[in-house]
Amino acid sequence: MEQFDLQEFVDKVHALLESKNYRELKVVLNDEMPQDIALLLEELPDKVMPPVFRLLTKENAADVFVEMSTDSQEQLLSVFSDAELKSVFEEMFLDDVVDVIEEMPASVVKRIINQADAETRNQINQILQYKKDSAGTIMTVEYVSLKAHWTVRECFDRIRKIAVDRESIYTCYVTDEKRKLIGVVTVKDLLLNTYETLVRDIMEEDVIFCTTNDDKEQVALTMSKYDLYAMPVVDGENRVVGIITIDDVLDVIEEETTEDIAKMTAVTPTNEAYLEQSVWNTWKSRMPWLLILMISATFTGIVINAYESRLSALLFACVPMLMGTGGNAGSQSSVTIIRGLAVNDIEPRDTLKVVWKELRVSLLLALCLGVACFGKLMLIDGLLLGYPYTWDVCLVVSLALFGTVVLAKLVGCLMPILAKILKLDPAVVASPFITTIVDVLSLVIYCQIATHVLPAI
Amino acid sequence: MEQFDLQEFVDKVHALLESKNYRELKVVLNDEMPQDIALLLEELPDKVMPPVFRLLTKENAADVFVEMSTDSQEQLLSVFSDAELKSVFEEMFLDDVVDVIEEMPASVVKRIINQADAETRNQINQILQYKKDSAGTIMTVEYVSLKAHWTVRECFDRIRKIAVDRESIYTCYVTDEKRKLIGVVTVKDLLLNTYETLVRDIMEEDVIFCTTNDDKEQVALTMSKYDLYAMPVVDGENRVVGIITIDDVLDVIEEETTEDIAKMTAVTPTNEAYLEQSVWNTWKSRMPWLLILMISATFTGIVINAYESRLSALLFACVPMLMGTGGNAGSQSSVTIIRGLAVNDIEPRDTLKVVWKELRVSLLLALCLGVACFGKLMLIDGLLLGYPYTWDVCLVVSLALFGTVVLAKLVGCLMPILAKILKLDPAVVASPFITTIVDVLSLVIYCQIATHVLPAI
Repeated sequence: MEQFDLQEFVDKVHALLESKNYRELKVVLNDEMPQDIALLLEELPDKVMPPVFRLLTKENAADVFVEMSTDSQEQLLSVFSDAELKSVFEEMFLDDVVDVIEEMPASVVKRIINQADAETRNQINQILQYKKDSAGTIMTVEYVSLKAHWTVRECFDRIRKIAVDRESIYTCYVTDEKRKLIGVVTVKDLLLNTYETLVRDIMEEDVIFCTTNDDKEQVALTMSKYDLYAMPVVDGENRVVGIITIDDVLDVIEEETTEDIAKMTAVTPTNEAYLEQSVWNTWKSRMPWLLILMISATFTGIVINAYESRLSALLFACVPMLMGTGGNAGSQSSVTIIRGLAVNDIEPRDTLKVVWKELRVSLLLALCLGVACFGKLMLIDGLLLGYPYTWDVCLVVSLALFGTVVLAKLVGCLMPILAKILKLDPAVVASPFITTIVDVLSLVIYCQIATHVLPAI
Repeated sequence: MEQFDLQEFVDKVHALLESKNYRELKVVLNDEMPQDIALLLEELPDKVMPPVFRLLTKENAADVFVEMSTDSQEQLLSVFSDAELKSVFEEMFLDDVVDVIEEMPASVVKRIINQADAETRNQINQILQYKKDSAGTIMTVEYVSLKAHWTVRECFDRIRKIAVDRESIYTCYVTDEKRKLIGVVTVKDLLLNTYETLVRDIMEEDVIFCTTNDDKEQVALTMSKYDLYAMPVVDGENRVVGIITIDDVLDVIEEETTEDIAKMTAVTPTNEAYLEQSVWNTWKSRMPWLLILMISATFTGIVINAYESRLSALLFACVPMLMGTGGNAGSQSSVTIIRGLAVNDIEPRDTLKVVWKELRVSLLLALCLGVACFGKLMLIDGLLLGYPYTWDVCLVVSLALFGTVVLAKLVGCLMPILAKILKLDPAVVASPFITTIVDVLSLVIYCQIATHVLPAI
């Protein structure tokens, strides 16, 4: 696959700018894909960017604008004349217009809304009212609707007439006189039948649809599960108000996964790409979690202080290994389960299956790790490094490790499922929290075993 | 959105099986989506599953078979007659046949290959030769190819004739007499032009394509970036051999993300869903990492043993907090960067930007955490819990925490980028390894500060 080389493109554009060869620049620029032109514009100095943007053809301008970062969009809007603004927004699909509006300050939003005609303005306001992360916010209002009494020929006439303005034309929805959804027919179905066939005879009446209020992640998972290229969105009265297309699904899934990964590693998710975030915002998304986790470590301190008189330095030296292995073992399980829950591979009704499996795996792991730990302490720490590890100390550490691993796995697999049952977000309870719990439990096990097995020191 | 209720479906089928109402069962069964029928079959007892499968219509049988787990597929194949096997595989797309073949034991593969006609057998063997994770392994060989000298009318005639057997017909590829790729035309383009228009006049010649050897993840990312619904795959001589469709992209992205998440949490990725994995396989995917990480913790032990005579129990009690916060701070950065690299938001040439940003964020975080830690030790541990923490001990811990957080963030952001530059997998170097490095470094900082600031104990 030919990889797009951004650096080469940037260099070429800089050279053409320097030699003031704007005619050639216009050709070179418009020749690339909108996504790549947007990447280029982000790399140009603030002063040069708007004039280069103005070299884009009318159609490219809208496509490129949609792909740019919020900062750059705002910068462009601040220098656009009203005519330029109108021309860019007229070419955009309505869902993209709404995406831009949602990120802009009020004064800019006013300018955008003012240039739109009355119907568009109504539609924009409608979409803006849908609740956060709902299907309504990602749907496209431009779709093809057909009537059940039409022939295939009439359908093609209709599609030909409106296809230019439609993002997706291949899945068409059949609606009755009240705009209620009654069926779906694909262009493939239309092509495979004669011109005289009636839509009602070939349409599929069992349509999978969603409502404007449905959660966009669930819609994305459903479309992915059934390999749907498009899904109709209906309002409270079952009237079709838009469609969600598969490229939106890709965006939703990427966004939701990034959010899940952020939460699993104790970061508050944001919508901005990493490099676009301000230092302040990155700080804000990380600080609370580190603070909470630091303060919750008070408990491990309490355990150590409680047992300090009875634990030798040799035993203390094994604490990081013990807690580290416990943490790793726990997050192996928790993260696997969280991912399984996210892609619907695991559901709360599988709890018993999961626990039974984790129990067997953890016993196997704990046994192997315990034996390995005993060997490591005797050989590496004892013989090789010369620390005075006796067999009973090694046994205590290995037994504690055994208990820690089994416990860590059970806590690790149960917490995310419990969160799901309690309608909390499984990703939030992930590794760092589970690690804190496992840390405390493993220390208690360790100190208890040590004080019972070893003679008082 | 209407959610499919598996339990309800299973109960209904069980009831019909018990009352031996097979006619009604057949209707109920074939009425659901293939994906849901597959889920149902997985829930049925081993003895009942094959006879229920036989109630499926010919078309449904193939669609359901593709969606089932490898275990169930093998079970079905073992009871299928040759005629049944032939009928199911004839209805399947070739890429799905290859997917099944890749998971089956040799004897079963032989039966599948034997029932295929000579041409299909050749194509299967061809696809089986593509290297793992390459575009060739996920492409569909059924696509629509057109000729440049055809009119739109001829194109529609062609599409009508072959559409039934084609997974995706909306993006058509224009090839020359040597089957070389010369352009792309969509059904939308065809619909928007008159029947007499020539393909060469409306086709887009600048086609984004990939070769059979390209990495499937890169292909998926490119298709996602440019919102492509299909991408042609060419061989070494630039001849079109297949296409990749957007639903394959969804699968690849889900699979690769699950793999990345597994690696980040120190688990060897597998292709099987969690509940399908045997205990043995789960053990195998987790054991090596826990073992390596446990043994690498030897270093933290060495540090503690080296300083043990000079560190009081009070100082030891803060070690878990210090190491935990360091680990959390480090994985916040590393996981964010790994995800950024995976979705191409961050590239190696951004290294300086990333480091500069992490440095500023980490100084801010470290300052706040240091102050908070001082306060926590004095107030919670000192006043509230009554441990004898003096201000100089608190200062040592807070200073060590400051250094640990800054260091953890820098190691955390640099390691994944370094891995990427060295063409290693960034996800593999993630949290657990970085945590081990940070653990050792933070202990050294801590002990050094303590021995220099505090009077000998």
